[in-house]
Amino acid sequence: MTTHHWIKNTLLAVLLVAFASGSAAARDPLPSWNDGPTKQAILAFVAAVTNENGEDFVESAERIAVFDNDGTLWLEQPIYTQFAFAMDRIKALAPQHPDWKTTQPFQAVLEDDHAAFAASGMKGILELVMASHAGMTTDEFAQLVADWLATAKHPKYERHYAKLVYQPMLELLKYLRTNGFKTYIVSGGGVEFMRVLTEQVYAIPPEQVIGSSIVTKLEMRDGKPVLVRQPKLFFMDDKDGKPIAIQKFIGRRPIAAFGNSDGDIQMLQWTTSGPGRRLGMIVHHDDAEREYAYDRSSQIGTLDKALELAGPAGWTVVSIQKDWKTVFPAE
Amino acid sequence: MTTHHWIKNTLLAVLLVAFASGSAAARDPLPSWNDGPTKQAILAFVAAVTNENGEDFVESAERIAVFDNDGTLWLEQPIYTQFAFAMDRIKALAPQHPDWKTTQPFQAVLEDDHAAFAASGMKGILELVMASHAGMTTDEFAQLVADWLATAKHPKYERHYAKLVYQPMLELLKYLRTNGFKTYIVSGGGVEFMRVLTEQVYAIPPEQVIGSSIVTKLEMRDGKPVLVRQPKLFFMDDKDGKPIAIQKFIGRRPIAAFGNSDGDIQMLQWTTSGPGRRLGMIVHHDDAEREYAYDRSSQIGTLDKALELAGPAGWTVVSIQKDWKTVFPAE
Repeated sequence: MTTHHWIKNTLLAVLLVAFASGSAAARDPLPSWNDGPTKQAILAFVAAVTNENGEDFVESAERIAVFDNDGTLWLEQPIYTQFAFAMDRIKALAPQHPDWKTTQPFQAVLEDDHAAFAASGMKGILELVMASHAGMTTDEFAQLVADWLATAKHPKYERHYAKLVYQPMLELLKYLRTNGFKTYIVSGGGVEFMRVLTEQVYAIPPEQVIGSSIVTKLEMRDGKPVLVRQPKLFFMDDKDGKPIAIQKFIGRRPIAAFGNSDGDIQMLQWTTSGPGRRLGMIVHHDDAEREYAYDRSSQIGTLDKALELAGPAGWTVVSIQKDWKTVFPAE
Repeated sequence: MTTHHWIKNTLLAVLLVAFASGSAAARDPLPSWNDGPTKQAILAFVAAVTNENGEDFVESAERIAVFDNDGTLWLEQPIYTQFAFAMDRIKALAPQHPDWKTTQPFQAVLEDDHAAFAASGMKGILELVMASHAGMTTDEFAQLVADWLATAKHPKYERHYAKLVYQPMLELLKYLRTNGFKTYIVSGGGVEFMRVLTEQVYAIPPEQVIGSSIVTKLEMRDGKPVLVRQPKLFFMDDKDGKPIAIQKFIGRRPIAAFGNSDGDIQMLQWTTSGPGRRLGMIVHHDDAEREYAYDRSSQIGTLDKALELAGPAGWTVVSIQKDWKTVFPAE
């Protein structure tokens, strides 16, 4: 090859690379979102805050996006996934607790009596969580969750729970990160429960997962420190708790927030009332055929007041039926 | 220029760039550390965990390093910097609280009576912190701290507190980050106090600062949410609290920990008792001339039990006198 040819071929290679990356950039970053105002709202927001010459530009370090988990990133019906885990744990532990056969809310779980369980309310839920989530080290708990996730299947879809995440939201997470955002989960779910799967499923590392938690106690076992989970609530990361936790953990106000229920109102308000351009979004479960349809009257993921606030606050309501081409990743 | 010359010049440029970066890599990353076993321990640890072909290799995502703040990254004598801030706040607020003139621990502060203040103990300290750190929004508090840091000066050095950080530790933080580490502060100090300066001074973003905190409450003011600081302790990030907070905030066990007092023992144990190669270090303040000399009998930064544990646990003790070429950044 002559030097002339060498230069010509090099230039050609450079042009091909430039062309290839140009076409990659032009490729739709949100292929599972139907075209329409919702998708446009996302694209326009990201374009605005990443345009260095625009008035809405935000430094990458300040591009914090927060996501609720249950009902926003993965499904939450007919019960929160963590409750399915808690109920299976209660059943597994029942032989060691004969009194549970006649004590609520345990009896309701053992007899699959959903009405009696619902009647036990938040107090009953907390009792179940404490009985099933405490009394072991943090490492032991993570292993229990991992084992359960590897075997348990959702009753409707007969798929592992880690596969019942929303494909359009996975694309959104990735799209935001590609544009210099740091993506956080801010969920009412237990932080140690979620962390078992968030890195693998959402590519969100444990240090970017904020959730509810119980008290842990440092103990020495065989000369080594372990953290033992105690049957006592430490922090409830719901409603007011979400902005409180965001400030405690992140220390900056997010510029984008994504939720699906009234428990996310305060996080959305905290995020979108800051100065500069902001994005607030609510996933509305209105697709009974492909997923579930529920809002105002649902016990799980109640979406009532947030729907009324959305319009005046400028939050975008995502219709699963209209906005999502697909709901879950392909099998 | 002929094509032949063009290629020759291009190759020359490539070689020059390669040479320049080679010499940059060869340049000492820790110039303020004297040569010796302490510096070697740091260099050997980083070389081992970043060597992809070695048995001690650690993925970048798992390279978490945690640093105490007071006495480890910046000075803590004659009193913790945050207490100097609290005392100045008490003096500023005194006209609105005439009863403080005759009530301890306020009277001790107003009269600069160190003995009476010391006698009030941890209870007294907490009272001062609550009276001076609560009752305002998080934004207002951050502004108060920023204003104070811009004006207050250390009595011995007559420099702003943000300039009284340890130059060798700044180099260490940067060196670790250059090698794929994520650096965290895990301090008994107040998280909202520290965050005002950590990004600018240590290049550590707010979301990587873990500390003690008080309860905050979400309130609506003029239709916008604010977080109001309450006079109630939420979490004390000291001793057992350090590993507990590390697990809550980071969710992974660090592989390197740096402290300077008995309050760091549990963090060092938690870090260095994990599997694989670990680094534990204790800064020993033994340089009365350039800084301060204190350990077992000091009220501030007591270093007693940790010195005994260091040998058996394999922690490296840093002698400021012997290991540090310089203590503070140049004026």
